[in-house]
Amino acid sequence: MRDLSKDRSLLAINSATVKPWTLEQLVEGCVRAGITAIAPWRDIVQAHGVEKAGNLIRAAGLTVSCYCRAGLFPAADDAGRRAALDDNRRAVDEAAAIGARSLVLIAGGLPKGSKDLAGAHRQVRDGIAALLPYARENGVPLAIEPLHPMYAADRACVNTLAHANDLCDQLGDGSCKDLGLAVDAYHVWWDPDLPAQIARAGSRILTYHVCDWLVPTRDLLLDRGMPGDGVIDLRSIRAMVEGAGYDGLIDVEIFSAENWWKREPSEVLRICLERHQTVV
Amino acid sequence: MRDLSKDRSLLAINSATVKPWTLEQLVEGCVRAGITAIAPWRDIVQAHGVEKAGNLIRAAGLTVSCYCRAGLFPAADDAGRRAALDDNRRAVDEAAAIGARSLVLIAGGLPKGSKDLAGAHRQVRDGIAALLPYARENGVPLAIEPLHPMYAADRACVNTLAHANDLCDQLGDGSCKDLGLAVDAYHVWWDPDLPAQIARAGSRILTYHVCDWLVPTRDLLLDRGMPGDGVIDLRSIRAMVEGAGYDGLIDVEIFSAENWWKREPSEVLRICLERHQTVV
Repeated sequence: MRDLSKDRSLLAINSATVKPWTLEQLVEGCVRAGITAIAPWRDIVQAHGVEKAGNLIRAAGLTVSCYCRAGLFPAADDAGRRAALDDNRRAVDEAAAIGARSLVLIAGGLPKGSKDLAGAHRQVRDGIAALLPYARENGVPLAIEPLHPMYAADRACVNTLAHANDLCDQLGDGSCKDLGLAVDAYHVWWDPDLPAQIARAGSRILTYHVCDWLVPTRDLLLDRGMPGDGVIDLRSIRAMVEGAGYDGLIDVEIFSAENWWKREPSEVLRICLERHQTVV
Repeated sequence: MRDLSKDRSLLAINSATVKPWTLEQLVEGCVRAGITAIAPWRDIVQAHGVEKAGNLIRAAGLTVSCYCRAGLFPAADDAGRRAALDDNRRAVDEAAAIGARSLVLIAGGLPKGSKDLAGAHRQVRDGIAALLPYARENGVPLAIEPLHPMYAADRACVNTLAHANDLCDQLGDGSCKDLGLAVDAYHVWWDPDLPAQIARAGSRILTYHVCDWLVPTRDLLLDRGMPGDGVIDLRSIRAMVEGAGYDGLIDVEIFSAENWWKREPSEVLRICLERHQTVV
């Protein structure tokens, strides 16, 4: 297991963690803090301009651990599915332009008015299959991120690593360079099948994210914790992930409307780094 | 699949659905509405007095589909585990006294301050093993209810039917009369493994509960929906459950602090019956 205690080079800051910042502020903030990698969401990249964003990031010497996020495949009709595919191709273009090591995909939930979960699962599979050739052409690996089951209805109907591994089995070319997984401890920590599915994933793990599960959790989406403030045994999960062969960056991604998003982002960065070195 | 459209005899009202009511009010309300089964929680039974509660229910001719709830096994120390076992034995006594067809068990979460999920899983297994002989002696089948994964930390670390089926394999006597499952559509609807695990459960299914998943869900615990108001395909899940051989009652259990608990309970009963006959 890697020793993070004196090493900041494996830390990547997800832009959702410092929500108030623009891409420019994120880049400058990380450089100031000696942090060398970021994981930007599409909103701040698009707001800066995609080409300019790539230049800014390269000029600062930062690595882009992954690009967040695309996917959201199920739709009520063909027009909706075409629109989703078009948007996913734009996300591939953007990921390539900023040099992201992978593009994170979340499945999407049930189309409005639908209760057909199995149908949504099929739409996700078909959507990834349709996107894959374009992602391969552009050299952007796709990382399927299973989200916590509490998001099955409205955000992502792929909620376990077993399901995501199945999709990789069905659709990937076997190299793990076209299609793999994003493992976020927050979404998968509860799963009794976690050790087996991480071992099964092996080199499919393209990116690893951390935050913490707070008790109590006051909001389904926006009450995630700083690593160390909750109940997730992050050290054990990282041991599994690295045991499976993962040697990449560790993204801190925290949605926290009432706490971390209200604090001074540079201070948030300082605490992320401290926790990265002590509890992750 | 059974036709519920003109049949109220398969409906059981869980006392949590009509939270403002005492046991006496629940019994009278059900009799008035022509509803013949209830699933009481321990609080209202204990408040009425256990022996008196049994007499009241029997005098009204009501069936007790299940008794809610016991379990909550993991504890920080031996004294905590002994206290949990003692309380579980009392719950078995109470279930026997009111003639409940099963006693529902939820696993319990992580002990305070613990991040040891695998250890909590072991404590649940050991706790059920310790309780089982007493439940067998008293003729009370235990029904393990996997709760939604969002409760893994603080309520129940058994979150999938696969895990609950595994526990039955390990601990039950094979008859399904000592140890089985409580399937609540709210907790398991999202699981891609649901059809396989319900088929695997077969005659282990001791009680079946329904409510609905609302979009958006505003609270992790107390924002559950009336059947038909959310996204769960209840008809399909009932088809799976009955396909596995279940021929028992269907409990409506709705935690809803801001909606159903504020309405007139007799009106809630009327709507439960209507939905039972049309969407469950």
